[in-house]
Amino acid sequence: MPHPNDPKLRSFISVDPASDFPIQNLPYGVFSSKDGLAPRVGVAIGDYVLDLWQLAQDCRIDVVEPGVFAAPTLNPFMALGPKVWSNTRARIGELLRHDYPELRDNEKLRRRALVPMADAKLHLPITVAGYTDFYSSKEHATNVGVMFRGKDNALQPNWLHMPIGYNGRASTVVVSGTQVRRPRGQLKPPNVELPSFGACKRLDFELEMGVVVGQPSRMGEMLSEKQAEEMIFGFVLLNDWSARDIQQWEYVPLGPFQAKAFATSISPWIVTREALEPFRVHGPEQNPTPLSYLKQAQPNNYDMQLDVGLRAAQMNEAMRICRTNFKYMYWSSVQQLVHHASSGCAMNIGDLLGSGTISGPEKHQRGSLLEISWNGTEPLELPEGRKRTFLEDGDSLVMRGWCQGDGYRVGFGEVEGSILPAS
Amino acid sequence: MPHPNDPKLRSFISVDPASDFPIQNLPYGVFSSKDGLAPRVGVAIGDYVLDLWQLAQDCRIDVVEPGVFAAPTLNPFMALGPKVWSNTRARIGELLRHDYPELRDNEKLRRRALVPMADAKLHLPITVAGYTDFYSSKEHATNVGVMFRGKDNALQPNWLHMPIGYNGRASTVVVSGTQVRRPRGQLKPPNVELPSFGACKRLDFELEMGVVVGQPSRMGEMLSEKQAEEMIFGFVLLNDWSARDIQQWEYVPLGPFQAKAFATSISPWIVTREALEPFRVHGPEQNPTPLSYLKQAQPNNYDMQLDVGLRAAQMNEAMRICRTNFKYMYWSSVQQLVHHASSGCAMNIGDLLGSGTISGPEKHQRGSLLEISWNGTEPLELPEGRKRTFLEDGDSLVMRGWCQGDGYRVGFGEVEGSILPAS
Repeated sequence: MPHPNDPKLRSFISVDPASDFPIQNLPYGVFSSKDGLAPRVGVAIGDYVLDLWQLAQDCRIDVVEPGVFAAPTLNPFMALGPKVWSNTRARIGELLRHDYPELRDNEKLRRRALVPMADAKLHLPITVAGYTDFYSSKEHATNVGVMFRGKDNALQPNWLHMPIGYNGRASTVVVSGTQVRRPRGQLKPPNVELPSFGACKRLDFELEMGVVVGQPSRMGEMLSEKQAEEMIFGFVLLNDWSARDIQQWEYVPLGPFQAKAFATSISPWIVTREALEPFRVHGPEQNPTPLSYLKQAQPNNYDMQLDVGLRAAQMNEAMRICRTNFKYMYWSSVQQLVHHASSGCAMNIGDLLGSGTISGPEKHQRGSLLEISWNGTEPLELPEGRKRTFLEDGDSLVMRGWCQGDGYRVGFGEVEGSILPAS
Repeated sequence: MPHPNDPKLRSFISVDPASDFPIQNLPYGVFSSKDGLAPRVGVAIGDYVLDLWQLAQDCRIDVVEPGVFAAPTLNPFMALGPKVWSNTRARIGELLRHDYPELRDNEKLRRRALVPMADAKLHLPITVAGYTDFYSSKEHATNVGVMFRGKDNALQPNWLHMPIGYNGRASTVVVSGTQVRRPRGQLKPPNVELPSFGACKRLDFELEMGVVVGQPSRMGEMLSEKQAEEMIFGFVLLNDWSARDIQQWEYVPLGPFQAKAFATSISPWIVTREALEPFRVHGPEQNPTPLSYLKQAQPNNYDMQLDVGLRAAQMNEAMRICRTNFKYMYWSSVQQLVHHASSGCAMNIGDLLGSGTISGPEKHQRGSLLEISWNGTEPLELPEGRKRTFLEDGDSLVMRGWCQGDGYRVGFGEVEGSILPAS
């Protein structure tokens, strides 16, 4: 049987070469459709969602109990562990092959199990146990540092020694398409003496990837590189919405709180770590050499193209405002997870780790409006004379990401969110 | 029927006036006993645990479906809301009254439903949805500020305007009695050029109270004082274990992360907000007047005595090292909750909000070793010539708290934890 990542594999379902969802991908999500059944687990293939619960009911996937696919979240399936993840993906790939008759020639089952993507409503794919946000792009940290502290002190002294991160708020992680209400909060611009309470005026996005942790670790135990890697179920696109003005006033000394608590958006499809395997690359050289608990024996970055589009309410289509790559990240997801557990912090199934804003070395690779507009001093020019320093009500933000193979791509779809006015 | 807080109420179970658990208290917890049944919900009364599941099975509590008391966590019961919380407490109080025969005279039911505390194992009483830690004692914030920034810049500019807080790690909240392994982490003392990885040398406790949120709020919505108050199910004692050396190196600019992620201990008994009602007091005057969303129309502090004991492995009993009061907190729990939701952050059933270290104006009222030993410069003297700047392996830390009524007290029992050596 060919490996499910084999570039030569073809599905009996025709998949456009520009589709994010060829047979080499098979990302997991939670969906519901017009049939009125409850949200359940599916896999994206071309323009369809493959209903795993229907397949399991029909005894076509026997590697797990069918119940895990009837759940409205992937957590029960993730709990079964990496061997089951891998076996299930291989079996799904087999069932979808152009030269494998079992599903291809069973019209009744195909009709039940293949739901047109256009008829599917996609839900938050996991129950988020904990949400942690890192800060691991050197270019992003440097840009922010130069803006606020000048060129000579841009990076904080600890930054090159560990993946800096903080705990975010899991309760407001939402799926792509959820509208985001402009937050209110305490604002105190530097030129004003006293704070006031009002609608955020400097609302921003942050282009990130999110790691979905699929296996737990025990309190009091550290993780090796290998252990950490095996705990990673997959990745999502992540928009870490940020209220820059709230953040500036609140964050000393305990870090961002309400500035990041109002919403975090993720893509509905979780691309598995296994599907990304062919796109592994080394990250940037790490100098100074990390302490031994953070050393990497293998390349843990991914060559993943990312872009961001902004569409103001009056525009017909989004304008690309950032084009970058996940491979630029200084600290890898594996290093983040190792560091996260290094104090003995227990990790849970469903933990979500944001990578931190993904900027690159070039100007068009900046992953936030804070950087793109250089703290509001260089407004972004949109069509018809419109300008943006930060997000306005009605703006829609779309992030996309994919790894380019030879004749196919392994992609994430999109994570989209638009801004509602403050209530 | 007398109100369940009536100081004149007496139970048919004899309760020592110094007990934390008279009929005026009735705190909720999760316990198991020698009978081999799964962990379930109980209430403390004197030296007994009253098994609510047994009472519900026997149709003695009809305000809720019995299933909620069979759960290994209070979350399902909390989900039923403040009216049910209040009615259930009133009914339990009635069943325990000295002049009410229903349970008192039913020997068979009494034998089933009353478990000697000595035979009960107490479990973590809630599934912690999110853990947030505040920093709301002015005395604590000032002490820390004076130590690290000097007297003139002790309080950060934002501190008097909002309850400063950060998201903590829910996965390592543990119940009293759980041993805590000394964390490892990156350490870089100021006089050393490069960080190293090793066992924390400055391990500390923080005396806090924890608010247990029992009702949710919706994403995008703010809370009034009244709404926030009604969402509070009760309070626990909380020890926010802290690795001061890890914290010092990691916390700029995103706040504490691994320094606080290895363990947070709470008491097994949740004292309900209703039981604390007679002990409400005004907090310290707030100057400047808080912004209107944080204004309080009622006293939201509590006159609650707190003390901390430290027992080194060689000592027979703990020595009291702190005696303070929850009433000193500058920002109340209600203000913390209002602020927490102010950006539109959704609150969940089972959210736990740490108050921040509770110090008072006097030297003996300092709620952490950092303050007691003044950053290690004034070692604490223990019996037989022992000294402490920070915690050593084998040390046991015990916190107690209670509100003193006329002839009875409404208390929390204790939260205890002892230190295991780093692995």
